[in-house]
Amino acid sequence: MPFAYARTIHFSDTDAAGIVFFARYLAICHEAYEEALAAAGLPLATFFTDTGVIVPIGKSEASYLRPLACGEKIRVEVTPTRLSENSFALDFVLWKTSSSGADKRAAVARTEHVCICSRTRERRALPAPLAAWVDAG
Amino acid sequence: MPFAYARTIHFSDTDAAGIVFFARYLAICHEAYEEALAAAGLPLATFFTDTGVIVPIGKSEASYLRPLACGEKIRVEVTPTRLSENSFALDFVLWKTSSSGADKRAAVARTEHVCICSRTRERRALPAPLAAWVDAG
Amino acid sequence: MPFAYARTIHFSDTDAAGIVFFARYLAICHEAYEEALAAAGLPLATFFTDTGVIVPIGKSEASYLRPLACGEKIRVEVTPTRLSENSFALDFVLWKTSSSGADKRAAVARTEHVCICSRTRERRALPAPLAAWVDAG
Amino acid sequence: MPFAYARTIHFSDTDAAGIVFFARYLAICHEAYEEALAAAGLPLATFFTDTGVIVPIGKSEASYLRPLACGEKIRVEVTPTRLSENSFALDFVLWKTSSSGADKRAAVARTEHVCICSRTRERRALPAPLAAWVDAG
Repeated sequence: MPFAYARTIHFSDTDAAGIVFFARYLAICHEAYEEALAAAGLPLATFFTDTGVIVPIGKSEASYLRPLACGEKIRVEVTPTRLSENSFALDFVLWKTSSSGADKRAAVARTEHVCICSRTRERRALPAPLAAWVDAG
Repeated sequence: MPFAYARTIHFSDTDAAGIVFFARYLAICHEAYEEALAAAGLPLATFFTDTGVIVPIGKSEASYLRPLACGEKIRVEVTPTRLSENSFALDFVLWKTSSSGADKRAAVARTEHVCICSRTRERRALPAPLAAWVDAG
Repeated sequence: MPFAYARTIHFSDTDAAGIVFFARYLAICHEAYEEALAAAGLPLATFFTDTGVIVPIGKSEASYLRPLACGEKIRVEVTPTRLSENSFALDFVLWKTSSSGADKRAAVARTEHVCICSRTRERRALPAPLAAWVDAG
Repeated sequence: MPFAYARTIHFSDTDAAGIVFFARYLAICHEAYEEALAAAGLPLATFFTDTGVIVPIGKSEASYLRPLACGEKIRVEVTPTRLSENSFALDFVLWKTSSSGADKRAAVARTEHVCICSRTRERRALPAPLAAWVDAG
């Protein structure tokens, strides 16, 4: 069962169309990734400082299926997948949750991450704890 | 006891100095205001549509007391105060919470709101449910 | 020759990694789209109000090729392509510009837009001026 | 005559009220500060790295006088004032510019900055080039 992150849509997530601005969906997915790492004992802020590597995003893609308005409740599921010794993908499903009835998909997204040395920017194998989290995904 | 909103600092809240960008503190305070309203049964998204008024911010001020980094936990306290028939202020204390020991103030902020007709932009008395929330603050 | 939008990277575009947050690349691409429309006499704010349609983004994808730091200069090229009677794509190339030497690609991105009635959310043909801009792309 | 920064309001600056979100006014003022520094030969990204100091914002205040919508043109004037050996203030006037007629003030804001060592966070005198820029303000 994938990690799930619950969130309310805030006013600052929205734009003049009255709904969440498309790029904010990706920022919200990144929050879910941070929470999933923290829940696994790998806090973003310190883990990468300690290991000397970073895992920047090389690609992203998203399909926006339903508009989201201020005050609405969402749940973001995160599923990691190993791509290679030094890369992985995250698949996100962003559900619009409902107090009465079935949740509905508001978006799906995917980010691809490559592990590099923070100093030289050369590719490096995923650190063991991160690899373990990805492989358990 | 003031309403309190718990929040984790996200990567997208930070800037290249490694800490939360100053304007984001105010956006986070606004999240706490939205949550306080929702907890009082006055959801921002529908309440103002239904009443035909809006309560835009006329002034803001903030003192930034401590830097906040990605992954840190905060708690935002919100206290409303009536200013006049058609205006109120919100005082925010943003606490950096600690698992071991005393919380510390990371910022204090204040916003002042004026109630106006959304169509004519003329001043209007606070709707009764909003006035009740402010006066109970 | 595609429309080009020049921009400096701001501090608020960056995150604690010291570079532009990945979702901000897409927000910057959207700025270029707004400027391209305005240059064609189709300002986003009024055009859609006047025509009763909106063109929300159904899909986005991006490849992040180079990090961008605060103060760096970029140029975003926008090329529209017709997909159907009621949809189009925008291809973006985000160049990191250099005062001495060749510009380098910092990212490529694509957004797909579907034209719908703002009230019923049913698909509608692109308004003629928008169709003309897309078809000239 | 104060430094002036010209800017168009983008869609991502706005919120569901259809106008610029209040905290974004301060982010836009910070852009003007960055541009003013760059114009004076003090680029934010490298200047502070080179001098070992930072000048974080200790306080901010703003009065929001007029709403701003997507596509509108603004001009932000920046005036620095020395407060002490190790601190200064920036006063911002955000003008809504008009092609036909007088510009109107959309907001005024002020930020106060304290110069500290980036390592120890102890107060330090402003570096000479920054002091010169402030004192010429």
